[in-house]
Amino acid sequence: MVFSTQITINFGDTDPAGLVYFPNIFHYCHIAMERFFEEVCGISYSKLTGERQLGFPTGKIDAEFTTPLRYGDVIDIEITLSEIGNKSLSLGYKVKNLEGVVCADVSQVVVAMDLSRHASIAIPDSIRQSLSSQS
Amino acid sequence: MVFSTQITINFGDTDPAGLVYFPNIFHYCHIAMERFFEEVCGISYSKLTGERQLGFPTGKIDAEFTTPLRYGDVIDIEITLSEIGNKSLSLGYKVKNLEGVVCADVSQVVVAMDLSRHASIAIPDSIRQSLSSQS
Amino acid sequence: MVFSTQITINFGDTDPAGLVYFPNIFHYCHIAMERFFEEVCGISYSKLTGERQLGFPTGKIDAEFTTPLRYGDVIDIEITLSEIGNKSLSLGYKVKNLEGVVCADVSQVVVAMDLSRHASIAIPDSIRQSLSSQS
Amino acid sequence: MVFSTQITINFGDTDPAGLVYFPNIFHYCHIAMERFFEEVCGISYSKLTGERQLGFPTGKIDAEFTTPLRYGDVIDIEITLSEIGNKSLSLGYKVKNLEGVVCADVSQVVVAMDLSRHASIAIPDSIRQSLSSQS
Repeated sequence: MVFSTQITINFGDTDPAGLVYFPNIFHYCHIAMERFFEEVCGISYSKLTGERQLGFPTGKIDAEFTTPLRYGDVIDIEITLSEIGNKSLSLGYKVKNLEGVVCADVSQVVVAMDLSRHASIAIPDSIRQSLSSQS
Repeated sequence: MVFSTQITINFGDTDPAGLVYFPNIFHYCHIAMERFFEEVCGISYSKLTGERQLGFPTGKIDAEFTTPLRYGDVIDIEITLSEIGNKSLSLGYKVKNLEGVVCADVSQVVVAMDLSRHASIAIPDSIRQSLSSQS
Repeated sequence: MVFSTQITINFGDTDPAGLVYFPNIFHYCHIAMERFFEEVCGISYSKLTGERQLGFPTGKIDAEFTTPLRYGDVIDIEITLSEIGNKSLSLGYKVKNLEGVVCADVSQVVVAMDLSRHASIAIPDSIRQSLSSQS
Repeated sequence: MVFSTQITINFGDTDPAGLVYFPNIFHYCHIAMERFFEEVCGISYSKLTGERQLGFPTGKIDAEFTTPLRYGDVIDIEITLSEIGNKSLSLGYKVKNLEGVVCADVSQVVVAMDLSRHASIAIPDSIRQSLSSQS
């Protein structure tokens, strides 16, 4: 199953060239990931990181930007969970514009972290089970 | 030769986990790239993109984040220009903390773009020559 | 009539103290203003600033932050257009959390600008008429 | 005495109109405030908010933007500490470009907060004394 979510590109996200400043594309991916966790795990990423002190910082990320994104574009971000490791997750993002063109193709590895100790941990079972139903 | 520049991590760059929100690490790399162009080409990136309408948007970027960056850290970004193509440049960034530990290792391909037409172009000779002395 | 729109606070918008970094509250207000223009004037702010080269940069802004906003909060921003001047608009924003508590109270004056010349201009009649129906 | 610090405006801070997106001007003021605390109190704002769990979130801020700031501008931010209350500080910021023109004039009230409890507190004596020498 593929999770997908829409984001509208705001004025403040774009640069003097009229294009999205590329670090903001990673910000969009993170927003999509937050929504993905809420949808799939049934717990908001704010509760996960706040109450449960469990976060998923990025260990590795590769991106290809093939079509520029512009102010006013509405984008669709599709997330695929390709691997669930002991302590990490592999996620893929396809960022499409409304014509369906893939503008950015992103692969990311995030690592489960106990935020109170800033140490990587095994992904808790409850989270793992929810995610497994998705992969 | 290696170009290197320092950046201090601000309060607003960090997230509720006390770590730098990873899209901001790419923002730091872009700031370093802007300073690199000014140093190497003798023209500020603001003049390059403004008056000359020449920009270098990112086509591809790969990053590995090995050590978390925290609020208050002062980082050193080393840029290596590894390849000068016809229309593109390959750049490497080592983001080090003050202990000299590489916290982020980034490879990027940027593409020369005529910003008035949003079309890729061959890198102008004057820019190419300045860059060649650096690679 | 009051225009109102919802925004969800993202992970990357908050600071190490777990609160929204206050410049981002102004970013939310700007997003709300963009949606307001689209709703009221029937033209998106991206077309207004792009095709028509008409923008409304901020000349003056006053804000009071009475209740902290946190990661995960969903906020409701109500916009009131209190005055339409020759070249400027006065806008008020009430930023409420889901309990209906006003967390931020913002007053702003924006100035009509011809973006191609970076010069202030009289608000075009078509825009003025659409806005008048709102105030 | 007036504290002053320099900031260079980066590519990513500016919008499609070629001007600084105004929420970023508040980001610059916050960076200047962080440097002010370090200079005046002899403790970095990162240690203050981290180790000592003392922060100064914004309660009120008024700004007037009279001259647009552009990509590539180097700005000088002058901070004046105009009042030290029991729990709050009143700060003024003059944001000048290199020609000395005041581009933004900002008045801010920040409130001392115990970040571990998210509750306002009286400004600790050691901080108060350092600040008093400045006002």
